[in-house]
Amino acid sequence: MSTKLIPDIIVGRLPIYLRALRYMKDKNQETTSSQELGENVGISAAQIRKDLSQFGGFGTQGTGYKIDALITNLMEILNVDQVWNVAVIGAGDIGHALTRYQGFSDRGFEIKIVFDNNPDLIGKKIGDLVIQSTDTMANALRKANIVIAMLTVTASAAQKVTDQLVDAGIKAILNYAPISINVPEHVVVQYIDPSTHLQRMTYYL
Amino acid sequence: MSTKLIPDIIVGRLPIYLRALRYMKDKNQETTSSQELGENVGISAAQIRKDLSQFGGFGTQGTGYKIDALITNLMEILNVDQVWNVAVIGAGDIGHALTRYQGFSDRGFEIKIVFDNNPDLIGKKIGDLVIQSTDTMANALRKANIVIAMLTVTASAAQKVTDQLVDAGIKAILNYAPISINVPEHVVVQYIDPSTHLQRMTYYL
Repeated sequence: MSTKLIPDIIVGRLPIYLRALRYMKDKNQETTSSQELGENVGISAAQIRKDLSQFGGFGTQGTGYKIDALITNLMEILNVDQVWNVAVIGAGDIGHALTRYQGFSDRGFEIKIVFDNNPDLIGKKIGDLVIQSTDTMANALRKANIVIAMLTVTASAAQKVTDQLVDAGIKAILNYAPISINVPEHVVVQYIDPSTHLQRMTYYL
Repeated sequence: MSTKLIPDIIVGRLPIYLRALRYMKDKNQETTSSQELGENVGISAAQIRKDLSQFGGFGTQGTGYKIDALITNLMEILNVDQVWNVAVIGAGDIGHALTRYQGFSDRGFEIKIVFDNNPDLIGKKIGDLVIQSTDTMANALRKANIVIAMLTVTASAAQKVTDQLVDAGIKAILNYAPISINVPEHVVVQYIDPSTHLQRMTYYL
């Protein structure tokens, strides 16, 4: 399915739908409508129907969507019908919080390894994971066949570490460093920077 | 300037431009071009010129942008030529990391107060801030005239706490809880959920 060219903005909404559907399922709900789903996620019912129709639809006129089946379909489309091993680069506050975060495992991700370049941190544990030296990063990532990294280093280190990650075979980077990074075309990047999100809101205040 | 109706997608790019310009300024650079800025942030030069033209332009044909002036203009447009007091709701790992984060102060934000409902946490300190009880949240927010909150509570508590925040006069919520929240029209919401960002990338893997 993912060979068809779907606009990234639509791809970006699918995890939101999936999250809401999982929440409905946890409450033992079995079916939903584009109206109800739309109210939950703040997106119009028409938009949801249009988005899902890109992948074949899934719903039935009048009866709506079977939640279980739609969850399965969305997980397949997003390639999270498997568990991805993930590396955290940087064991500061954010790296710690991510490594300890319980919310990844049922959404397709498991943090397998954590790196830092600070000798005071290397060898210490976060949960079950021992913080590794970034000196051994490239080998360790290749050996564990990890292609997804969360980058929580400083802005000044971000590009250098990114280049190392790309060389080590990383194909997706979730960047928490407050700076844009440059990657080759085969690598995807998403950004999490609370200040940019806050500034997007203060515009309206 | 903010009375003109600008598409939110453009508003969302301005903090990215501002962040890159600040980084250039920190390196003592004085001028830039839409080409250079575009390469830094991964957005085309044409798009940047088009975005900035919505607000009057700022650049000069041939000489480009004066970084200092463009920073000042963007800060005014985004309303971060002032410092906003911010509340953190939830003093778990993410709440801790945000409260201790050093990257807010020079981007227009200062965390002034932290709340939790866990008696084991209330009264403890994160840096200089004493964790307050959510029971006192509404009064404390009104008294401190805080209109921006970062929400790091559980998914199951998120909507209830959101309703309390809206009642207490909060106008902007950065939601870290992994669930969509419903707010009245005068309240703006942004979402940070690493799993949805990761899933947006695994689609392409």
